[in-house]
Amino acid sequence: MQIFHTISETRAFVRQARARGRVIGLVPTMGYLHEGHLELMRRAKSQCDMVIASIFVNPTQFGPTEDFGRYPRDLERDAAMAESVGVAAIFNPPVEEMYPQGYCTYVDVERITDKLCGLSRPGHFRGVATVVTKLFNIVQPDYAYFGQKDAQQALVIKRMTADLNMDLEVVIVPTVREQDGLAMSSRNLYLEPEQRHAALVLSRGLERARKALREGERNPAEIRQLVIDMIQAEPLAEPDYVELYSYPGLEPLERIEGLTLLALAVKIGRTRLIDNAILEV
Amino acid sequence: MQIFHTISETRAFVRQARARGRVIGLVPTMGYLHEGHLELMRRAKSQCDMVIASIFVNPTQFGPTEDFGRYPRDLERDAAMAESVGVAAIFNPPVEEMYPQGYCTYVDVERITDKLCGLSRPGHFRGVATVVTKLFNIVQPDYAYFGQKDAQQALVIKRMTADLNMDLEVVIVPTVREQDGLAMSSRNLYLEPEQRHAALVLSRGLERARKALREGERNPAEIRQLVIDMIQAEPLAEPDYVELYSYPGLEPLERIEGLTLLALAVKIGRTRLIDNAILEV
Repeated sequence: MQIFHTISETRAFVRQARARGRVIGLVPTMGYLHEGHLELMRRAKSQCDMVIASIFVNPTQFGPTEDFGRYPRDLERDAAMAESVGVAAIFNPPVEEMYPQGYCTYVDVERITDKLCGLSRPGHFRGVATVVTKLFNIVQPDYAYFGQKDAQQALVIKRMTADLNMDLEVVIVPTVREQDGLAMSSRNLYLEPEQRHAALVLSRGLERARKALREGERNPAEIRQLVIDMIQAEPLAEPDYVELYSYPGLEPLERIEGLTLLALAVKIGRTRLIDNAILEV
Repeated sequence: MQIFHTISETRAFVRQARARGRVIGLVPTMGYLHEGHLELMRRAKSQCDMVIASIFVNPTQFGPTEDFGRYPRDLERDAAMAESVGVAAIFNPPVEEMYPQGYCTYVDVERITDKLCGLSRPGHFRGVATVVTKLFNIVQPDYAYFGQKDAQQALVIKRMTADLNMDLEVVIVPTVREQDGLAMSSRNLYLEPEQRHAALVLSRGLERARKALREGERNPAEIRQLVIDMIQAEPLAEPDYVELYSYPGLEPLERIEGLTLLALAVKIGRTRLIDNAILEV
């Protein structure tokens, strides 16, 4: 497996593969890989001749008070994991390779970014859309893989790809969970043991909503309150948002029918975790 | 020559050419072609195996009170002109093909768009950057051609292409002028005969600045005033802006040294015309 730190090396490598007719898959990550990332890479490997993973903690998607500085980084560990699932190359640029001095171009996806994480984290999706556009242009993949755990991000990237006529297919891969239900996230590393236990309120909240739905509840406000109550019953957890929207349009709902996104963000100490479920009635 | 109205036909056509190893040039235009456009196409033809021209009056780059509705359109005339210089295909999409319902993604180039036409026409460069990104992604050219007449646009597109790692080369082609000096523009069509004569203040203003520079003037405020005085001496003309900036950085200047962009926008009746010169000391 190759590790590239520059755009030009990565481009040269991909260009050669493309000239040989290879189908190329891209898995953009911020590194500190877990089973969720490996699942994206396995899925890519099953669909493409060659898989490139990017590992880049992207500063433009972090707010000024967020965890850019302490976000975990371990390239050696990541490289071994990526190699074990057949990744051909890692693109791991320094920040100044992606955002050289004078950089000033950003991609904005409007409307679907004015709620959920877009509301809690102003500028977050602008940073995501911008870096993903850059990665797409550098690697020019046939397929790109993202996790359903970041449900709004997946919608933003699909919307951007369609709106800007990017010539690739975006594949969304189901969330991978720990045995006890916690969605895999590099940020789970931040959790102390008792916080790790408290973090189960996220997946349990989703389960609570599913149960209410099975029992016939169709009022989004009622379901929202059930989930909020559950989170607030956990002393170490504080809800950031719990929201239900139509899926994939992210329109407000009077009543649950058709596909509905239940998305939640919860703070456990300084750590903010997200999870979601797509409810089907 | 082929004329395509859909993205998918255009893509299929270009993909075939690329598979045969053809070098592809794109000339984005809003149509109502003139000698300036033909010069872009000839330049493309000399550098590429296949030239695609787009003809699309892009609504997102017009302000609400601007001339989107009355902008001249004549596809038959344009097609004959493009064919005469060897263009292989025209991409002429309807608005809803480029901006279908629910469209919400935009490309923003900051800083260099907060002055000149970016100041007079809020949102203009966002529309330009967005449509050009879309055209680049649809055609995936090796080279794309733009006129120096739109100096700030050329800088915005070069900046965007570099910042977003777009895999193509942007070529800027010198302004083509009428015999009397008026820069070619589709908007010259709007001018009544006496306005057409008054419009010469633009190129004469540039000439006046060059003369002052030759005579040793290095104060940008003095040169700016000479040009403004010249425009104001013409009863049918009203200056929108006359500005000098460093080139290509577009930084304000205390004194003229090195490359300097002198850019001007002038209203002749309802018609707004622009012109510019790159001064070299």
